[in-house]
Amino acid sequence: MRILHHLPLSPYSRKIRLALAEKRIPFELRVEKVWERRPEFLELNPAGTVPVLVEENGLVIADSYAIAEYLDEAYPDIPLFGRTLAERAEVRRLLSWFDNLFGQEVSRNLIWERHLKRQLGHGHPDGAAIRQGYANLKHHLDEIGFLAERRTWLAGAQISMADFAAAGHLSALDYANDVDWSHNQSARDWYARVKSRPCFRALLADRISGLEPPPHYADLDF
Amino acid sequence: MRILHHLPLSPYSRKIRLALAEKRIPFELRVEKVWERRPEFLELNPAGTVPVLVEENGLVIADSYAIAEYLDEAYPDIPLFGRTLAERAEVRRLLSWFDNLFGQEVSRNLIWERHLKRQLGHGHPDGAAIRQGYANLKHHLDEIGFLAERRTWLAGAQISMADFAAAGHLSALDYANDVDWSHNQSARDWYARVKSRPCFRALLADRISGLEPPPHYADLDF
Repeated sequence: MRILHHLPLSPYSRKIRLALAEKRIPFELRVEKVWERRPEFLELNPAGTVPVLVEENGLVIADSYAIAEYLDEAYPDIPLFGRTLAERAEVRRLLSWFDNLFGQEVSRNLIWERHLKRQLGHGHPDGAAIRQGYANLKHHLDEIGFLAERRTWLAGAQISMADFAAAGHLSALDYANDVDWSHNQSARDWYARVKSRPCFRALLADRISGLEPPPHYADLDF
Repeated sequence: MRILHHLPLSPYSRKIRLALAEKRIPFELRVEKVWERRPEFLELNPAGTVPVLVEENGLVIADSYAIAEYLDEAYPDIPLFGRTLAERAEVRRLLSWFDNLFGQEVSRNLIWERHLKRQLGHGHPDGAAIRQGYANLKHHLDEIGFLAERRTWLAGAQISMADFAAAGHLSALDYANDVDWSHNQSARDWYARVKSRPCFRALLADRISGLEPPPHYADLDF
């Protein structure tokens, strides 16, 4: 069976889980505690990060960027990168926006500082970073709302990896009850639409030991 | 004429300059002082980063990841991402390694802290970050040397975006005389081979006002 090495709160793993499910590609999840730096895992991905996809034929694809592009090349039936060169440039611009900017400005400040740092022995959460993370999240919700008011999906008329990248971050933050959905109604409406898709079901069923999600996490009418 | 908005010390801009030149795609360079946050430039790329490519037909491609993938789709004659799925996964794994890990662990600690931070009014260079950057650079030179001892080019038998990503970072650091090439002979030999390619010539002719490169910067037998 195809295996995806992941972590439940990793936005990058969630992005790939959504893409695999949207494309109806079956896979098994395996949790990888990346901080343990297992030699067997470092052989799959010397960078030591999740997600890593291992195909049934043994092909290893490491890094969420490489996996996303691979999935569209190997399983093109349900394309998630757009069709024209212009559409593809827009999907990738937004992918980079969410993977890099949103990741550094929001997810790192909240998921890392609030939920992982102390647990992994890296000291106390940095209050200033957390406050900055919440402030940045408002700007990013406004950016998502801006796009959602002008387009059916974030990158255009079709759902794409850009939606899954954004939803990967937001669903991880939402699990930890870090998203104030009242801040931007258009962003909330967009998230409700992504969340209602069949590909989202497995994410909504996630339960992490010691961290219960808020009641609205799995509620489609949150 | 096709225009690439760039900054001379941006490793990500250098990666795209090398790819354009390797593919023999003519372009004009335009320096964008991203810290000025010009409204006209933010319209091209709301993230406010370089590089941004503007095609003659008006198509705007923002973000070095989007540009690299675009170039191979729009101009496939000289492919820079490999051919098989396995080759493409390896090129992209390494691209992410250099763009993200090397970028954060080395280039940000050296190029940003030493050359841009004070100039842009963000305070004094952080000595600890700079020392960490030099230490990390040694590990990365060893990683490059490890790959170069086993393969013709970093990702395999053909030159690829992985070589240009690594060379983009190292050439920017080398311009600022930040690379101790005696640390790893295999990495140095690999860099000498990339540097000798015609696509590298324009980078070696770069001169930034107020920052002279060391004599060996443009020397092919450094």
